[in-house]
Amino acid sequence: MYPEALRLLIEEFERLPGIGKKSAVRLAFHVMNMSDEKAERFVGAVENARAKVHLCPVCQNLTDGELCPVCASEKRDRSVICVTEGPKDIVAMEKTHEYNGLYHCLHGVISPMDNIGPEDIKLKELLSRLNEDVKEVILATNLTVEGEATAMYIAKLIKPLGVKATRIAHGIPVGGDIEFADEVTLARAIEGRREL
Amino acid sequence: MYPEALRLLIEEFERLPGIGKKSAVRLAFHVMNMSDEKAERFVGAVENARAKVHLCPVCQNLTDGELCPVCASEKRDRSVICVTEGPKDIVAMEKTHEYNGLYHCLHGVISPMDNIGPEDIKLKELLSRLNEDVKEVILATNLTVEGEATAMYIAKLIKPLGVKATRIAHGIPVGGDIEFADEVTLARAIEGRREL
Repeated sequence: MYPEALRLLIEEFERLPGIGKKSAVRLAFHVMNMSDEKAERFVGAVENARAKVHLCPVCQNLTDGELCPVCASEKRDRSVICVTEGPKDIVAMEKTHEYNGLYHCLHGVISPMDNIGPEDIKLKELLSRLNEDVKEVILATNLTVEGEATAMYIAKLIKPLGVKATRIAHGIPVGGDIEFADEVTLARAIEGRREL
Repeated sequence: MYPEALRLLIEEFERLPGIGKKSAVRLAFHVMNMSDEKAERFVGAVENARAKVHLCPVCQNLTDGELCPVCASEKRDRSVICVTEGPKDIVAMEKTHEYNGLYHCLHGVISPMDNIGPEDIKLKELLSRLNEDVKEVILATNLTVEGEATAMYIAKLIKPLGVKATRIAHGIPVGGDIEFADEVTLARAIEGRREL
């Protein structure tokens, strides 16, 4: 019942992740009612991001420069590489201001159920970076079956090369109640206990 | 921490209604990872809808033709005009296949609190349509304070012109439990009772 052009726009919004029929209609109407200036800015942002953003040839993180700011920086410790599943994890890590090493973005995890093997993630690119300068690889994949398996897989691959493989700690979050922690987290917290 | 172009795209998505920070990041990544073909289709749909869709000069509903399909149709009863707040209400009405008259889309309601007066909605356009053919105007604004007030306002304006003003019925929805109906709806249902 909507005009054809509007119906097609609603369909496009419906295809986006997490957008249902109602939200798609609302978004389409919003975009229809935008001023020309705002609509151009919106479309321009989509085209600009798609044109300029690409993968850093070293760490595979997203960047709009030749190298990403981390790989290009002379202040970062080049003896450690922190391996993450995606670019969002790197943003989260950087926000802590606690880590000064390099990163490597896998863009996924090994998941045989989804037909994703080691050759489908940026693993070759990680291995090619392991020169004599690299002393440690921190495996910061998520604590899921696939994240754990991918971390184990990578650890097995790189240990023979004389590079230390470590895993980020899992346990009770800061401010979290032990009383309400789920069993898996609590088991990890006990397993990973440290002497005071 | 995201590349500038990606950050700007995330910001654009955040400006859309009902999209929070997390959804905006997810949408931006989705758009970044689209194939060229899909991205062109998305951007094209935005531009096409904005270029082609405009208001029907008669009923003010959205259309991509000269007149909207309802106003252009020779099969519609031109003696009744159903007045709605927005184009979405017209789509809902049409889905019932129960109504065969014309429409008029106000694009809003009178709301002094939001500084929206009678001159800010498509009311002049409605009055200019009230020729001798029009026998009845059905006021189908929502059952809100503003919707009710707008319906009353329009009814007062058109009655002296010899046009019947009616209001859609409010009551218990079909399939709804009287037990769980809110008081306002139930009061309306009693008030609007009909003899069997």
